[in-house]
Amino acid sequence: MKVYLGIDIGGTNVKIAVVGGTGRIYARGLVDTLPDEKPQKTFQRIRLACDSLVKLGKDTEIVAAGVGCAGLFDPATGYLHTSANLPGWENSPLTRIASRALGVYTVIDNDVNCAAYGEYRLGADRRVRNLVFVALGTGVGGGAIVDGKVLRGSANYAAELGHMTVNFDGPKCRCGNRGCLEAYVGSYGIVRSARDRLREGKGRILRQWVTEKKKRLSPHLVFEAARRRDGAATAVVRQTGDVLGIGLASMINIFNPEKVVVGGGIASSFDLLEPHVEKAISRCAFAEPARLAEVTRTVLGNDASVAGAALMARDAVGGRKKG
Amino acid sequence: MKVYLGIDIGGTNVKIAVVGGTGRIYARGLVDTLPDEKPQKTFQRIRLACDSLVKLGKDTEIVAAGVGCAGLFDPATGYLHTSANLPGWENSPLTRIASRALGVYTVIDNDVNCAAYGEYRLGADRRVRNLVFVALGTGVGGGAIVDGKVLRGSANYAAELGHMTVNFDGPKCRCGNRGCLEAYVGSYGIVRSARDRLREGKGRILRQWVTEKKKRLSPHLVFEAARRRDGAATAVVRQTGDVLGIGLASMINIFNPEKVVVGGGIASSFDLLEPHVEKAISRCAFAEPARLAEVTRTVLGNDASVAGAALMARDAVGGRKKG
Repeated sequence: MKVYLGIDIGGTNVKIAVVGGTGRIYARGLVDTLPDEKPQKTFQRIRLACDSLVKLGKDTEIVAAGVGCAGLFDPATGYLHTSANLPGWENSPLTRIASRALGVYTVIDNDVNCAAYGEYRLGADRRVRNLVFVALGTGVGGGAIVDGKVLRGSANYAAELGHMTVNFDGPKCRCGNRGCLEAYVGSYGIVRSARDRLREGKGRILRQWVTEKKKRLSPHLVFEAARRRDGAATAVVRQTGDVLGIGLASMINIFNPEKVVVGGGIASSFDLLEPHVEKAISRCAFAEPARLAEVTRTVLGNDASVAGAALMARDAVGGRKKG
Repeated sequence: MKVYLGIDIGGTNVKIAVVGGTGRIYARGLVDTLPDEKPQKTFQRIRLACDSLVKLGKDTEIVAAGVGCAGLFDPATGYLHTSANLPGWENSPLTRIASRALGVYTVIDNDVNCAAYGEYRLGADRRVRNLVFVALGTGVGGGAIVDGKVLRGSANYAAELGHMTVNFDGPKCRCGNRGCLEAYVGSYGIVRSARDRLREGKGRILRQWVTEKKKRLSPHLVFEAARRRDGAATAVVRQTGDVLGIGLASMINIFNPEKVVVGGGIASSFDLLEPHVEKAISRCAFAEPARLAEVTRTVLGNDASVAGAALMARDAVGGRKKG
């Protein structure tokens, strides 16, 4: 059997998956990310973990590996230029390092691009050729598939969908700009919005959890309070869904995609956001592209990036073609 | 000599150009658009105009024609679905009609896509593979070239760059949404903004022109007043440039293009807007993609759409390849 490695290098750990040619995941592994370790060492540990996951024999062959990595990676040169999570890895020839340590042909890309590719290859049907992927987490990442290819732009900086300005009079974003989509629907935007409402004296349940039960104010807590009909939390959910929908409407007007996928940690609460998202899209986007775009929560969940990375590797070596 | 026809069907007239294989324009013509005429008739008149422009002989051959048309055209089927300027043409098999009347192979596309393609093929150097084109007029149109190809999306609705939300609390846009880029930098947005300032009692020169000289308040008048240092007009120019820059910054974060081109009727005053546009981009976009994106006013001016349409036709029949 031919298998592909899918690897996602995050700030706290590295996810590993052994993926078949059809995208089926046969095994999963996890190793720690050590902040001061050099990439050579990390990939050696990843290699050992892979060896224990894959029982190599005359029937199993690792054909290639795909690696998703946060930060700016240039596929043309194989260099990782910048990475907030892995400062010690910056300006390293990551493709060469990884392929040597893993012993197979290796492709590397931005982690959100990998997730978008995974949703495109596995989460969408064959007619989908244009897909927008938004990853809601601490920050808001983006990936786009345009006519079957990952949108990269001139230097793989493209699809920073979290950093479209949705309100130029809005709050400061981490990136320095004002009123980015991320400033509203990233974790810190949601928490800021909840804190503002608690300060106004609203939100009985949420207030009790935060002040008496000493729970940390997080998007998860806000969503949980909203499920119990807490007023402040419900208002935050409504605003978050509304602004997310406004941003997605712009993306629908820009990309006219068949599919829009919302992923990332917050996607597990997408059912709460969805009605507000849909209302905003029908208000803000052109009717016809809005009708043509199916908006869903992630199909692959946490597997999106590793599955997508493995399938990028598969497609790079010509393992399987679609469409 | 092999030549290509470039045709741009506007609401008031049809522009025609005879274009050589390198993009050079040999002749230009203009015929009226008659609102109630059927497309068959219009293309017959276009054909007559073309015949008078091209002196056919043993040395000159019309190889193909490219047609730019406002509205939603589906290249897959050859049908024009909707068009605000040409309501009588809706749902007609325009490619078949045009190619029969013109007697040559014909490609049709949205007029702004054609202009974007023209700027890509003729206005940019060979290293440019990703280009964003914004047409500032009554409305704000958009076109994007992604890795050398026109961005279409699933049904050629893509690149509606004028309808990204830049301020969800902003003024109503013609499309029904609030705070679209167009609502600020389209003609009517500029006029609205000037009127608001005149109402506040500002703008000595502009007021005099409008009230005493009975000049119509238009973007052109505002730009002219700004050149004479009228306070209200200068403030409108600053705001228009700032919001345009905010929108272009989002496009830079989304497409990471080598080039951003501002065209349309208002582009002739781009020199006034440019400093404010640049300041906004450096404030709002990520530093590296902003550095990589050259922002310029249109190189081809009014010829962009006809030249682009002709080169689309050229490239469709394999007349010349780039890159």
